Amino acid sequence: MPAPLEPLYVDLRQAANDDLGADGVTDALVALVDEGLDLLQDNAERVPLESKVEGKSYFMFRHNETGRTSRPVNADLFGEDRVWTKKAIRDLAARWVPEEQELAKLHVALYSAAMSYCAGTDVTKRGDKKSPGTFFEIFVGHLAARAFQSTPKRSVSAPTLDETITLPTDFIFELGEGKGRVHLPVKTSTRERVVQVWAHQRVLDGMHGVNRFRGLLVVLTETNKQSEQSVVEVCLPGQWTAYQMYIAQLFRVYYLDPPVAYLALKKKYPFIQVKTFADFFAEREAIETPDLAT
Amino acid sequence: MPAPLEPLYVDLRQAANDDLGADGVTDALVALVDEGLDLLQDNAERVPLESKVEGKSYFMFRHNETGRTSRPVNADLFGEDRVWTKKAIRDLAARWVPEEQELAKLHVALYSAAMSYCAGTDVTKRGDKKSPGTFFEIFVGHLAARAFQSTPKRSVSAPTLDETITLPTDFIFELGEGKGRVHLPVKTSTRERVVQVWAHQRVLDGMHGVNRFRGLLVVLTETNKQSEQSVVEVCLPGQWTAYQMYIAQLFRVYYLDPPVAYLALKKKYPFIQVKTFADFFAEREAIETPDLAT
Repeated sequence: MPAPLEPLYVDLRQAANDDLGADGVTDALVALVDEGLDLLQDNAERVPLESKVEGKSYFMFRHNETGRTSRPVNADLFGEDRVWTKKAIRDLAARWVPEEQELAKLHVALYSAAMSYCAGTDVTKRGDKKSPGTFFEIFVGHLAARAFQSTPKRSVSAPTLDETITLPTDFIFELGEGKGRVHLPVKTSTRERVVQVWAHQRVLDGMHGVNRFRGLLVVLTETNKQSEQSVVEVCLPGQWTAYQMYIAQLFRVYYLDPPVAYLALKKKYPFIQVKTFADFFAEREAIETPDLAT
Repeated sequence: MPAPLEPLYVDLRQAANDDLGADGVTDALVALVDEGLDLLQDNAERVPLESKVEGKSYFMFRHNETGRTSRPVNADLFGEDRVWTKKAIRDLAARWVPEEQELAKLHVALYSAAMSYCAGTDVTKRGDKKSPGTFFEIFVGHLAARAFQSTPKRSVSAPTLDETITLPTDFIFELGEGKGRVHLPVKTSTRERVVQVWAHQRVLDGMHGVNRFRGLLVVLTETNKQSEQSVVEVCLPGQWTAYQMYIAQLFRVYYLDPPVAYLALKKKYPFIQVKTFADFFAEREAIETPDLAT
């Protein structure tokens, strides 16, 4: 079976390579999200999964022809309102700042858009773990580039006493005159490799000074499907606490499907600020204010 | 074709799980190394590779029946003297401290022993990337456990003001009364994930104080085979410099096949001490001296 989302994915990647913040990326993103949601609606059925995550229910998509199944999908966050989902992306690309009461609905649109390609690829393409990660990185990177009105770089340089050191990084945004800088890593899930994010933040702090680059980590989900039947969230809150205490301080962690165990980190020392990705767009101006402490 | 080294590998893993420092691990290690060298000698031929690494020549093993090929093998470091290789392992397990003039010969024995199972598995088992890593970890961990006369742990705990945080780590050795502690990560190669090693060192320094745990990274090689024809070393010395400057300070990096680009780091700030793994056994007493600065 051909992979029906592949041509639009290739278009998106090409547009993003040229200029991550361009109008053409918005168009390619909207087209791909639309096609992904269409595919899931018309060619797949929802199969309930036993949720071992308190307060959340999950299903997976199963393709009608191939029987191939998707990653777990949060039933309360996945919406089939394609018109609204597409409008939300276009509005955010036009620097829409959502109000408090609009955040829940925006959260659904963002989650659905992110899952459209990821779950759509799960059910139509065998063994493709890479392209959902690249898609999610472009999705987040593009919306952040539009919000910040800045094209991100993928490396930083620092002059030292005897040479200039250049380091490859996740997205680095220079926000412009009087507005500071942002270090924005994007992951579909974190697991044990997340320590890299804190380590890179530490290098930036060491090279350029603490609070020069604000660290904003954006993650899709921490769900894990167990033997096609149940869903768990894999979280390591004790390790995050140690990293935030002893390596460096991330300014925010935004999730498309925020894990319960990480949301709780806001309430105890060192108070890691875990929020929904929708919140990012509401507090973007605060993030851009370099003398705002938290 | 059955994987001929597998039964002895399973024996080794079982012995190491019970007690990494036990005599039974020495025996299982020697038996597996012997079998691996035997297999490579009798059932495989050496195929030269074009070396793009200055001053080093490489070949790969090709199995006589299956035609399957191995990772690159350093021609100057791989020796077929099975009697000497086995004796070296047994002597190190008995806490032999080599003299300066014995180091080159010991280096050959250690490299050959490490490669015996790795290359032997490459040519006899399809797609097994995991067991060579586990083998190498047991090989290094066992010899270090014997040298330090200490069984390593795989986690550290730190009491904080409101809770005790436990962190999974690489090998942690408590050297005993007046002798300090060692943090010993083991990798078959490092690539971009190596930042984890510096990050974990940073957490240990933050939790327990700088220079409380000496960081000793042990790596097999950084070689990479390109299209079955040539060999390169993949090294990121600028990044290592940044990590050593801004994240934490590793005390030593030991290689079984030391890359030229990393050996050069000894000579310029921040002076990362990259050596052969044979050197570890010669300077073990210095490492155990907690008030020795370098």
